[in-house]
Amino acid sequence: MTQMISAWGATAPESGINPLSIERRELRPDDVQIEILFCGVCHSDLHTARNDWGRTHYPVVPGHEIVGRVAAVGTDVKAFKTGDAVAVGCLVDACLDCPQCDEHQEQYCANGVGTYNSRDRHDGSPTFGGYAKSITVREAFVLRVPDKLDLARAAPLLCAGITTYSPLRHWDVGPGKAIAVVGLGGLGHMGVKLAVGLGAEVTMITTSPAKAADAQKLGAHAVLLSSDKEAMKAANGRFDFILDTIPVGHDVQNYLRLLKPSGHLVIVGAVEPMPGFHSGLLLGGRKSIAGSAIGGIKETQQLLDFCAEKNILPECETIRMDEINDAYERMEKSDVKYRFVIDMATL
Amino acid sequence: MTQMISAWGATAPESGINPLSIERRELRPDDVQIEILFCGVCHSDLHTARNDWGRTHYPVVPGHEIVGRVAAVGTDVKAFKTGDAVAVGCLVDACLDCPQCDEHQEQYCANGVGTYNSRDRHDGSPTFGGYAKSITVREAFVLRVPDKLDLARAAPLLCAGITTYSPLRHWDVGPGKAIAVVGLGGLGHMGVKLAVGLGAEVTMITTSPAKAADAQKLGAHAVLLSSDKEAMKAANGRFDFILDTIPVGHDVQNYLRLLKPSGHLVIVGAVEPMPGFHSGLLLGGRKSIAGSAIGGIKETQQLLDFCAEKNILPECETIRMDEINDAYERMEKSDVKYRFVIDMATL
Repeated sequence: MTQMISAWGATAPESGINPLSIERRELRPDDVQIEILFCGVCHSDLHTARNDWGRTHYPVVPGHEIVGRVAAVGTDVKAFKTGDAVAVGCLVDACLDCPQCDEHQEQYCANGVGTYNSRDRHDGSPTFGGYAKSITVREAFVLRVPDKLDLARAAPLLCAGITTYSPLRHWDVGPGKAIAVVGLGGLGHMGVKLAVGLGAEVTMITTSPAKAADAQKLGAHAVLLSSDKEAMKAANGRFDFILDTIPVGHDVQNYLRLLKPSGHLVIVGAVEPMPGFHSGLLLGGRKSIAGSAIGGIKETQQLLDFCAEKNILPECETIRMDEINDAYERMEKSDVKYRFVIDMATL
Repeated sequence: MTQMISAWGATAPESGINPLSIERRELRPDDVQIEILFCGVCHSDLHTARNDWGRTHYPVVPGHEIVGRVAAVGTDVKAFKTGDAVAVGCLVDACLDCPQCDEHQEQYCANGVGTYNSRDRHDGSPTFGGYAKSITVREAFVLRVPDKLDLARAAPLLCAGITTYSPLRHWDVGPGKAIAVVGLGGLGHMGVKLAVGLGAEVTMITTSPAKAADAQKLGAHAVLLSSDKEAMKAANGRFDFILDTIPVGHDVQNYLRLLKPSGHLVIVGAVEPMPGFHSGLLLGGRKSIAGSAIGGIKETQQLLDFCAEKNILPECETIRMDEINDAYERMEKSDVKYRFVIDMATL
């Protein structure tokens, strides 16, 4: 039987986030029903709630950094039982039968299903995210939260964490590599912590002197002020890899100059029109500009296990559900260090 | 003793290419003196002669697709003897003591020396290229031309060939890979031949229906007209790799859509300002835009050996030295299939 449950969501671009009631499907044999304990607040939540990308279907219930406990399992579920600490990220389904899924990169499956503002593959019903009492998700898309991880702080790993971890692993960031992280927000602060955890030499690049001390607290080995022309020039050709977490369209040319030959600049924050660039900056050293989006289920599990082992956790500010609209306003002003997490007991 | 020899070059941006006399240095112990038999004509020759890139030092003697025979060797030269068929490409020196040189990527050495319009590392004298009777080059930068290669057609391998071969190898193009080559000129025609020779499935992408038949003659397995919107849409996500040989600034977004997830678009033709792009095209499939410039000496030798083994040769139109200015004009109109080669006996 379907269930009506409490949630918070948007009903129109200007509505803000308010209480509403949504339907969760009856458990299928391979479904896991999860009582949500914590839900992180991602910039995508805000963009989707306000229809900034022009593809929101209302009502929308945001939230794709979900941590909770198993409340019930379908008859075929093997890996989880009631009471298990689990998590759900940005994906709740995919075809599991294409080259991308075969390579455990379900995030690039043409038939992937987002945790919210998407459609169930079987009955076409809308998917609703984690600003809700519970969620029902196909077993293959449920992550196990290791015992050592603090549930109250784990949620942002499900989006901010995997968005930075996946490219760091794909481009082989680790000992002996000099890397830089550009931008110190939700993504950037995880990028620094994870790259340090992976053993790389990590420089934070920021426009703001105020952020330099913060970056070092997070573990960055060095800070480079992008406004300091001399320092930027001196850093020419220094990095093997640059993780670019800037959330808006921006000129990447000054960062390309900082790459060693065969280096990669990887955009993870901006899904935006980017300005032009001089191709000589790429040809002159076999450099590349790439993009990367979240990560696959298998590597998300690896991330959770890695963070438990290394004791890496996001810096969170816990809020009540009814503080969400204020939180969005503060996010827009970058007034958060570094991720809001909703305590869902306050729903 | 230095030698004065006959050459052709430019003395000013508007001068055209005319006879002049240049100095070649006395043989150093590790030098090889080469009598030039053939020299290919590259777009860079034209750009440099006319100072299109704003960094030409006059007089300039272009030509970096050089094939000839050893005329004399320095006292320490081991690998070559008088009469050997040899070649010189775009590089005549590098530090051989940096991470790039250690990886046989001398083209990215910060102290590399171009075959023309550059400066000798030891005495600062200007380097002059292959539109000349002879050239004197450090042994480590001299290539061996295999017996099986037709000397009259081998020259364009030294720039157009290696510029396309190096990225094809670096990005692992071969059997089981579906790749596309954009643009059918000097670079594009070599890209098609080499990718076919490496065993990939090769599609030529061109704006011009007239070039479709030509592409198939060169061995392309398929042709895609970039002006055909339906065909382009149907090709979405088809290619592992796209070799972009377009020689001017251009929008790459329609080509990014043709890449599979984790695919690479590699710019080799344009050293130009490029227009902006939407970063979602990269993030949506972990795609990248890269650039690549010529290749290292070791891989240039591999290319010559590979072409000899597979009988792959550029399509050339042989010209006399005094036809060079007409050849430049025709190149500007893309009126050449696909590379001019100067018969240096006509100097």
